Amino acid sequence: MTAAPDAPNTATLTITCPDRQGIVAATSQCLHRHGANIIHSDQHSTDPEGGTFFMRMEFHLEGLPGAWADFERAFAETVAGPFDMHWTLSAATRPKRMAVLVSRYDHCFLDLLWRVRRGDLNVEIPLVISNHEDLRRDAEMFGIPYHVIPVTKANKAEAEAEQIRLMHEASVDFAVLARYMQILSGDFLHALARPVINIHHSFLPAFVGANPYRAAFDRGVKLIGATSHYVTEELDAGPIIAQDVIPVTHRETPESLMRLGRDVERQVLARAVKAHAEDRVLVHGNKTVVF
Amino acid sequence: MTAAPDAPNTATLTITCPDRQGIVAATSQCLHRHGANIIHSDQHSTDPEGGTFFMRMEFHLEGLPGAWADFERAFAETVAGPFDMHWTLSAATRPKRMAVLVSRYDHCFLDLLWRVRRGDLNVEIPLVISNHEDLRRDAEMFGIPYHVIPVTKANKAEAEAEQIRLMHEASVDFAVLARYMQILSGDFLHALARPVINIHHSFLPAFVGANPYRAAFDRGVKLIGATSHYVTEELDAGPIIAQDVIPVTHRETPESLMRLGRDVERQVLARAVKAHAEDRVLVHGNKTVVF
Amino acid sequence: MTAAPDAPNTATLTITCPDRQGIVAATSQCLHRHGANIIHSDQHSTDPEGGTFFMRMEFHLEGLPGAWADFERAFAETVAGPFDMHWTLSAATRPKRMAVLVSRYDHCFLDLLWRVRRGDLNVEIPLVISNHEDLRRDAEMFGIPYHVIPVTKANKAEAEAEQIRLMHEASVDFAVLARYMQILSGDFLHALARPVINIHHSFLPAFVGANPYRAAFDRGVKLIGATSHYVTEELDAGPIIAQDVIPVTHRETPESLMRLGRDVERQVLARAVKAHAEDRVLVHGNKTVVF
Amino acid sequence: MTAAPDAPNTATLTITCPDRQGIVAATSQCLHRHGANIIHSDQHSTDPEGGTFFMRMEFHLEGLPGAWADFERAFAETVAGPFDMHWTLSAATRPKRMAVLVSRYDHCFLDLLWRVRRGDLNVEIPLVISNHEDLRRDAEMFGIPYHVIPVTKANKAEAEAEQIRLMHEASVDFAVLARYMQILSGDFLHALARPVINIHHSFLPAFVGANPYRAAFDRGVKLIGATSHYVTEELDAGPIIAQDVIPVTHRETPESLMRLGRDVERQVLARAVKAHAEDRVLVHGNKTVVF
Repeated sequence: MTAAPDAPNTATLTITCPDRQGIVAATSQCLHRHGANIIHSDQHSTDPEGGTFFMRMEFHLEGLPGAWADFERAFAETVAGPFDMHWTLSAATRPKRMAVLVSRYDHCFLDLLWRVRRGDLNVEIPLVISNHEDLRRDAEMFGIPYHVIPVTKANKAEAEAEQIRLMHEASVDFAVLARYMQILSGDFLHALARPVINIHHSFLPAFVGANPYRAAFDRGVKLIGATSHYVTEELDAGPIIAQDVIPVTHRETPESLMRLGRDVERQVLARAVKAHAEDRVLVHGNKTVVF
Repeated sequence: MTAAPDAPNTATLTITCPDRQGIVAATSQCLHRHGANIIHSDQHSTDPEGGTFFMRMEFHLEGLPGAWADFERAFAETVAGPFDMHWTLSAATRPKRMAVLVSRYDHCFLDLLWRVRRGDLNVEIPLVISNHEDLRRDAEMFGIPYHVIPVTKANKAEAEAEQIRLMHEASVDFAVLARYMQILSGDFLHALARPVINIHHSFLPAFVGANPYRAAFDRGVKLIGATSHYVTEELDAGPIIAQDVIPVTHRETPESLMRLGRDVERQVLARAVKAHAEDRVLVHGNKTVVF
Repeated sequence: MTAAPDAPNTATLTITCPDRQGIVAATSQCLHRHGANIIHSDQHSTDPEGGTFFMRMEFHLEGLPGAWADFERAFAETVAGPFDMHWTLSAATRPKRMAVLVSRYDHCFLDLLWRVRRGDLNVEIPLVISNHEDLRRDAEMFGIPYHVIPVTKANKAEAEAEQIRLMHEASVDFAVLARYMQILSGDFLHALARPVINIHHSFLPAFVGANPYRAAFDRGVKLIGATSHYVTEELDAGPIIAQDVIPVTHRETPESLMRLGRDVERQVLARAVKAHAEDRVLVHGNKTVVF
Repeated sequence: MTAAPDAPNTATLTITCPDRQGIVAATSQCLHRHGANIIHSDQHSTDPEGGTFFMRMEFHLEGLPGAWADFERAFAETVAGPFDMHWTLSAATRPKRMAVLVSRYDHCFLDLLWRVRRGDLNVEIPLVISNHEDLRRDAEMFGIPYHVIPVTKANKAEAEAEQIRLMHEASVDFAVLARYMQILSGDFLHALARPVINIHHSFLPAFVGANPYRAAFDRGVKLIGATSHYVTEELDAGPIIAQDVIPVTHRETPESLMRLGRDVERQVLARAVKAHAEDRVLVHGNKTVVF
């Protein structure tokens, strides 16, 4: 999954299109004609009769860097066009560039930095943006620039503009809110024009909004969870990428739920980021296909 | 947990009272004075300063049947009274009597019948009540009387009255709704005056009400679950006893979620019934302590 | 997964062959030429360079019953032959025929019968074979013939011959040992010449052989599990299809582990049988690919 | 669980003794006479008839620091002596001192350092010992002294002697092997005379010894796990404190199993260390009671 010896000759193709006969045949033939070998392939149809078709193929093509432009053009013309596909093609050697936004909690943040350092996540982190100074030392230990942009009611629009300027300047492909404690405006999302992944500390749709551990405690649930999803304008309502839960008992307090939940949050966020970085997540309306 | 060789000399004591010093000392001394040996003991305080104290003790007392009345009186006078306790004392040889209410789904129902037959649940089922004929043969295979009481908008009050009459006549200790597809009225709950356990096919508080699998499908969650709780007047809002979930993917349909969910539903309901039957569940406001 | 309205026009193709370029292209083209639409597709390579390639495709082909022989021949000649494939083609409307062998434990057995009755498992059970009378009534309640063949050291060879005769006569496709407490001989497996699925009550390879719950208790493990695998001549060493575990504590006894384990055993066996019945399990040496 | 406002007046008592009537009564009375309020209490009997009794009580006693010596003496004389108890008494304000031994893998190590920094584990780390330089920078970032003691066949005895000298000098209460890749000798364990906790990267007793992920891959298991246990002279055979597993499929390689396993290893080790640090683990022969 991470950079293999053959990485320069490996790429990932994702496809979303109206379902009809012949998609797999046309795609696999095009790859075959260019000498590619399919390593992994996953597909999904919402409904074989008139639904939407999704596919992700990882393939190996000897001499890919030189053949890239040619293959891309041929695929666009002979396959993607006729089948009306929305598609992406990503080189295995080109890690996605990920901005991380944080506030004061360090657990999701440190977990991401450490996984990137180990090579578990095929991403680069060109910058960290925070509304607080707290985690500067941690970011810098990992050699990552740390930008503090305080956010208040009064300066929210300017602060968001500055965040977007920094992220565009750093050519990020997507952003992750690693327990960033500010709600992003719809304007921000439109201007950023890149996917934003959030981690919410409950099993959505239960306990939307602030203080989910307190709400979980008050309701007396026997499981607590975490949900990673793409951010949309509606709070905590975007397409879900990953979720998990752990069992809890009457012995927990809101504080101990928060402590236990940290382990779930960081695992779920890491799983979502990994899936996104490997082009495994295709969005369909308010839902995801995760290959 | 089920009837051991020593069952005639074994009992379970549960206690709920305002927290203060000396409760454990007084209780364990009273047991010790009567020659009892504590086999299991669990306790919980919501807050050692002025909160509520909960305890469950399983003990062994040689010659318990003869000593029962004496111990009961002594405990009431010297311990329960002074500490203002709400308490119960249950003999291990006296299984609780459980009414089962069903409609058409057989999975939770059959699972309970099998577990009772195997001796996994320390309960007796004197009767099954349904609003449909469908499961009569299954009930009768296990030798359990099956009463059909159709429920319509028009006859709801009478139907509930008849249900209560049957359950009181059968001296049931509690009732279980094993996917019984009717909402019980507040009047019913008051008149029955015994705990009622329900299984809801979602991880509450997400997806309250009808069609939770459809709602889960529409939201695109990556986990589906089940919740067993005591029934209160507010729909799906009573104290939760047990919950569990299983992972699902984009490949599922509302129908396949329903099929997968059946396994979780029956496990969660069985766990809740077992805990209740063994006096492990103490209710506190809208929450439970499950020892 | 179970018989859909389109079942008559639906089939599943599985492939195992040496990996090389063009397999997916050739297969999907052949399907496309016959007017088939691929509904699900999964593939796996042990190693894209010179390894083994596995694929499972579920497809829909209007008028499949009439086109079957033609498609089968074309696929054999133009695809399977050239690529040196081991392959199977199964009609969705032809449930596999499953023999069930049992001894005295009822939990796995009843769970399978119930799932078949509900339509969750796409199998038929033409017969049950046991070395004890105990479960006759349960089998007969579900309308399934129950054959008792006592097995002793002295008559083992004859008993096995009789079991095989019954299973061949009933045209079974595979057999399931639902806690059948006899070890099958290598001769039996060769003579039966059909897959046999077993459920072992531990997470193999831990606790091979008899009394795994006792061994788990003695070792003080904090998880107990179950493993479903294909039976081979070496005891508990065949290819694993499914495994699961549940957490346990110091409070359990060998008896309570056995009780808790029953729930895992029946879930794991059901999962393995379902995967086998849907042609999702491809065996490779002593391991499985489970799509 | 971690230092609460009342920590100075809070302590934990653990008891192991032959089971007989009156233990709870005597203990709780002694606490009550000294004005203590029991906050948490757990107990376990291996067998109420002639087995071993285990108890852990957390209590609050106003003015505990001044009353400590008096209570300790009274308990020893009037309770522990007569009941032949092995017992411990720990102040909540006195975190245990933990040595960490590492080699080159950073995941378990960093996870422990982060959890200690966050206050999740009630321990202090006075030193880290390694046979390699690799993790020096990580240790020093957290301000913890890092000692490198290379170990070879030739110098093993001296190296162990130096390790023990450092740990005794630092007054450690226990040691943790956070993927320390050397086997400790029986002499080492005797000379250290303190508990040593290890993390093994399999669900013991499966895959004892080296390369468990490779062995898991070769066996084709569908779950991989980790086990934390006390170290004894027999390799990977000591009393198990915590275990967990995660599901895996045929798609994994030995390398990806190793990557996936890291998350389980660090969670399981953290759980074991937390339980040990809070006096929740009582050893009994080759097994543990974990309250």
